[in-house]
Amino acid sequence: MPRVIVDVLPKAEILDPQGQAVARAMGRLGVSGVADVRQGKHFVLDVDDSVDDAELERIAETLLANPVMEEWVVRREGNGGQ
Amino acid sequence: MPRVIVDVLPKAEILDPQGQAVARAMGRLGVSGVADVRQGKHFVLDVDDSVDDAELERIAETLLANPVMEEWVVRREGNGGQ
Repeated sequence: MPRVIVDVLPKAEILDPQGQAVARAMGRLGVSGVADVRQGKHFVLDVDDSVDDAELERIAETLLANPVMEEWVVRREGNGGQ
Repeated sequence: MPRVIVDVLPKAEILDPQGQAVARAMGRLGVSGVADVRQGKHFVLDVDDSVDDAELERIAETLLANPVMEEWVVRREGNGGQ
């Protein structure tokens, strides 16, 4: 069964408090060399062959991401691996 | 500045209530053809050249994922694109 990955991130101009919290925690824990962190969502969908790219885009836009605040990338994985 | 992606997912044997909620919502909204959804976290890190793979693995294991319940993949992106 084809596997589809959808990665969702806050838009560049949108504040990302989760990512900032991670970046601050790194500083406290002595991790250096990380200039910026942004945090988003990672979805793995197992879909039928009947689901085409347009349907995937509709799913991402309406169910997985908030188009006002987030951007997303849909990609298909040919093999069954992650 | 090198960009690093870390994708975190609940382990296969761990219940994923977020993914299940998305899958159920799809059913209610008339989306068919999606057999399974799993939801995790997607991190984008801007790191210095000084940060090596071992350090990235340590960051992922201690700060970005919970090794008891989650698995993760670290990958470097050579270019500046997402």
